Amino acid sequence: MRRYDAADPDFEGAFTALLATRHGGGERVDAKVADIIDAVRHQGDTALCDYTARFDRLTLDADRLRVTEAEIAQACGSVEPALLAALDLAATRIEAFHRLQLPSDLRHQDAAGLTLGLRWTPLDRVGIYVPGGKAAYPSSVLMNAIPARVAGVTGIAMCVPTPDGILNPLVLAAARRAGVSEIYRVGGAQAIAALAYGTATIAPVDRIVGPGNAYVAEAKRQVFGHVGIDSVAGPSEVVIVADGANTPDHVALDLLAQAEHDEMAQSILITDSTAFADAVAAAVQRLLPSLPRAAIAGASWRDFGAIILVGALPEAAGLVNRLAPEHLQLMVDDPAPLFRSIRHAGAIFVGRDCPEAIGDYVGGPNHVLPTSGAARYASGLSVHDFLKRTTWIKAGAAALRVVGPAAVTLATAEGLHAHARSVSVRLPPPEA
Amino acid sequence: MRRYDAADPDFEGAFTALLATRHGGGERVDAKVADIIDAVRHQGDTALCDYTARFDRLTLDADRLRVTEAEIAQACGSVEPALLAALDLAATRIEAFHRLQLPSDLRHQDAAGLTLGLRWTPLDRVGIYVPGGKAAYPSSVLMNAIPARVAGVTGIAMCVPTPDGILNPLVLAAARRAGVSEIYRVGGAQAIAALAYGTATIAPVDRIVGPGNAYVAEAKRQVFGHVGIDSVAGPSEVVIVADGANTPDHVALDLLAQAEHDEMAQSILITDSTAFADAVAAAVQRLLPSLPRAAIAGASWRDFGAIILVGALPEAAGLVNRLAPEHLQLMVDDPAPLFRSIRHAGAIFVGRDCPEAIGDYVGGPNHVLPTSGAARYASGLSVHDFLKRTTWIKAGAAALRVVGPAAVTLATAEGLHAHARSVSVRLPPPEA
Repeated sequence: MRRYDAADPDFEGAFTALLATRHGGGERVDAKVADIIDAVRHQGDTALCDYTARFDRLTLDADRLRVTEAEIAQACGSVEPALLAALDLAATRIEAFHRLQLPSDLRHQDAAGLTLGLRWTPLDRVGIYVPGGKAAYPSSVLMNAIPARVAGVTGIAMCVPTPDGILNPLVLAAARRAGVSEIYRVGGAQAIAALAYGTATIAPVDRIVGPGNAYVAEAKRQVFGHVGIDSVAGPSEVVIVADGANTPDHVALDLLAQAEHDEMAQSILITDSTAFADAVAAAVQRLLPSLPRAAIAGASWRDFGAIILVGALPEAAGLVNRLAPEHLQLMVDDPAPLFRSIRHAGAIFVGRDCPEAIGDYVGGPNHVLPTSGAARYASGLSVHDFLKRTTWIKAGAAALRVVGPAAVTLATAEGLHAHARSVSVRLPPPEA
Repeated sequence: MRRYDAADPDFEGAFTALLATRHGGGERVDAKVADIIDAVRHQGDTALCDYTARFDRLTLDADRLRVTEAEIAQACGSVEPALLAALDLAATRIEAFHRLQLPSDLRHQDAAGLTLGLRWTPLDRVGIYVPGGKAAYPSSVLMNAIPARVAGVTGIAMCVPTPDGILNPLVLAAARRAGVSEIYRVGGAQAIAALAYGTATIAPVDRIVGPGNAYVAEAKRQVFGHVGIDSVAGPSEVVIVADGANTPDHVALDLLAQAEHDEMAQSILITDSTAFADAVAAAVQRLLPSLPRAAIAGASWRDFGAIILVGALPEAAGLVNRLAPEHLQLMVDDPAPLFRSIRHAGAIFVGRDCPEAIGDYVGGPNHVLPTSGAARYASGLSVHDFLKRTTWIKAGAAALRVVGPAAVTLATAEGLHAHARSVSVRLPPPEA
């Protein structure tokens, strides 16, 4: 963990360096991924089964790629009722909030007599990638699939690797609750290739979302253009702006909750109180050993953690906007002025009793959010990602007489004479 | 031009082949572009001036990279008033339609006592790329810049190459009318690199939009993640669904307007009348020689043009949805049923007197649209591309008691114990 003081004459340079730590490069896997995609495009299910045997130590025939209804029902039956109830509360809340986001079509008749409109249409089919093993989070299944279903997507295909054949019952229960229509036990770049191009078993989709390792991310990059993709997520981050009136243990646990995601995660506290900064730093060290994921959280806090001391809390807004964090907690007496001056953040958690973990599970807004400063230009996942806009224009001869001549003038100036004539041929001849 | 008959037993195979013609590959320029980006990142303005001398035959000092206010004023003064008036009509209409698209923030208090919200914020700075030479279309300047300004973006930087130093006055006039804040005479991958990473002269932006050649497209791909980009446009396309009651010359000119864009453009007519199909095909051949861009339009029509005969017009909807065209014209007596059954199209033009060229210039909706079937999952440019969403949650202790326990249950099931404890530490202790 590094400590910074905004009053320090070297602060600007140190803060700029902190910003730069977040753009890391990963392993180059371009060529390997290109080979996998090529194999799936040409050999279809056979390639899927080969890769699954090789990477997941699971021997399958093509007719076993899809998880059966019986397997899903059995898995759901094995989940304890309290867990199913928690999953249902989360799903219900996520669904309700995403339903509020559904946009309305536009239809507008203007003075020239043209009717203009914009229509939202759901995608036909989407693919949801779910990482295997420990990173198979049922909450992510809800967060990726529910917006698609709320948007009106009818075909939601999920791919999840099952190393050694082991299915995660809670992931299957989440998929069923979220309205996933098909589940395939395939992972990695081969799953992305199958979703993008289709095989005999897996019908192709129009857009692929969901987190994954370096192979999955690179495969999404390579199939982009043939299908839509979501943006590639980097390490998770939280910035907490907190005054000295908070309970240090609460803030320490909020910082550690982010840090336990992975060694590259970043937790930053911005405060105006030196004493509080010291207390939180001490609380982090005291609480760390009690965490099952202490090794991961400890490495994250050591390498990427930061505490920034500011002279006054309003100064925090400028720093937050430069960080453009994925998650932002505002733990101050009157958060409204800070809230208004924040321009760039994926999601904001307002209040001393609103830890970011609420947003990960049961708040309602999506937990798939822009990382590494992408909140400057990007948004979290929403129903918008599963809808597209078609604009339309309706014009008759009278309306064309009003706006047509300007189109002819501009098309002619651009040297596009067929454009100009396609309009002028429909206009009355110029007066003699 | 190829002709197809949906009643033909081989139609399905032929139509599938037609769909496949639209996914072409281009020149591989990855390595060259990576070198250019690297040079701009490390040498800044010096690299921009070097490349501009080499590629545009224009020797500049860094302080001449930016087009001055005096140059812009002079250029605008040289444009004839009728052209400025046409530009103004187009800009006014584009602005009005895009203003209708501005989304509203959400704020919702739920039964559990949480307040949930979604706030739209404009991007700080965007970059607009405008191709040089003949492809420098003032209409595209309007279509790219106006949505940004309507969204509330305050910094709009435009890069346009000026081969041999020649500025296009109408492009500068369009930029001024659209509210572009800075114009730089830089093109190619070097312009994209400068917009993404910044130089001493050009401040970095958060998102880059606008069409360009293979170098520009590849550069956008390479800077994606550091900044946002728009999608890479392929050749332009139109599908016209027309009954036999249309004037063949009108439809022929509409097809040719698309074809004159470039040799790879695609124009497709779907009709239920053999006689009309014959008449349009003849009209295209008769009208072609009279076009200044006859060579381009002729090659496009010869290589990619198509006429598809269907037994009845409602059949057209299924074909259109598989084509997911950039532009769709519906030239039939009652377009409403067809309109309703179209799921995938970038923009739709309804009526016999609503040629696609209206949408290119003065309709109001954007002319930057998804190509090559991307309308299955993507949308045309809009104010949404220059805004991002921040979701937020406000909760107090009472609300946390309602939803917190489910979050603790799910976090524990996912093995994220710091997540669970960040919530449970704020809950009252369980009853004894």
